[in-house]
Amino acid sequence: MAADMTTAEIVNRLKSIEGHVRGIERMVENGEYCIDVVNQILAVQRALQKVNGMVLNRHLHTCVTTAIRGDHPDERERVIDEIMQVFDAIGKL
Amino acid sequence: MAADMTTAEIVNRLKSIEGHVRGIERMVENGEYCIDVVNQILAVQRALQKVNGMVLNRHLHTCVTTAIRGDHPDERERVIDEIMQVFDAIGKL
Amino acid sequence: MAADMTTAEIVNRLKSIEGHVRGIERMVENGEYCIDVVNQILAVQRALQKVNGMVLNRHLHTCVTTAIRGDHPDERERVIDEIMQVFDAIGKL
Amino acid sequence: MAADMTTAEIVNRLKSIEGHVRGIERMVENGEYCIDVVNQILAVQRALQKVNGMVLNRHLHTCVTTAIRGDHPDERERVIDEIMQVFDAIGKL
Repeated sequence: MAADMTTAEIVNRLKSIEGHVRGIERMVENGEYCIDVVNQILAVQRALQKVNGMVLNRHLHTCVTTAIRGDHPDERERVIDEIMQVFDAIGKL
Repeated sequence: MAADMTTAEIVNRLKSIEGHVRGIERMVENGEYCIDVVNQILAVQRALQKVNGMVLNRHLHTCVTTAIRGDHPDERERVIDEIMQVFDAIGKL
Repeated sequence: MAADMTTAEIVNRLKSIEGHVRGIERMVENGEYCIDVVNQILAVQRALQKVNGMVLNRHLHTCVTTAIRGDHPDERERVIDEIMQVFDAIGKL
Repeated sequence: MAADMTTAEIVNRLKSIEGHVRGIERMVENGEYCIDVVNQILAVQRALQKVNGMVLNRHLHTCVTTAIRGDHPDERERVIDEIMQVFDAIGKL
């Protein structure tokens, strides 16, 4: 992935997620109410899902488009297989 | 949540998740392959799911059991409603 | 589960889901656009999730409440374990 | 989607899912244990997920490949947008 606007935005979101996780550690240490902890964990999971969407979107516009427009059927097959594996893994979350 | 073995284990897992997220930031900054980034994000999501399960398990054994065994129907209703909301949110992840 | 209003409503929703699935079979046979088929399947999955919520809600108000208020710690443990397994399975959908 | 082997297999799987849902209606009417009903609904959801994967896989190999290899940037953008929307919807299941 090239260093561009999207890279910066993805890194920023990950940094904010990192801080969010640190905050949840404090909540657990302070004995806060379980359901509040669970809801914060769910919020982090949703934030990660958004980052995943951004990375995938970029992947489809770059690597996948290049491979599918290219002349190597094996490469085309490979990028499609990878997408299907990701779909599968997301479905199992 | 009382300070006990489980608290320590939950905090440790969250600390390790925090480090994992930091590692993904490096991957993105270094321009690593999108699908590798996606797979690491999926791994973090699965780890958070496990922590969520631990917190919920403890919640069912403590607060929920106490409320349901107690004499306040409103409290019973409240803990059940909270569980249903969490179910719903997990289903929407 | 006793025969009551909720039973009727759950059965009605399942019957409507059954009809929805039959409709998707027609779509596939008629060669309709893949993404339209996928979206209909996703709609059925969401409808099933709602039914699951109704069944679970009733379960928490009946069997789980009875077991937790009862005098058998094993029974309490059993219903909590079952809930945790369902949580886990929903998380893996 | 052209009438081919995959079409037949997808329709067969949907027919089997339809029968599975009908079986769950019987379970609910007969007052079977909630958790058994929930587990059957979860099995149907997993089966639908598999069908969705088959439809998407075919879609990537046909329509998406054609659009991305074609000369219309709008068409390329459209198929990628559709995939991203499906990803998003699967993530929210």
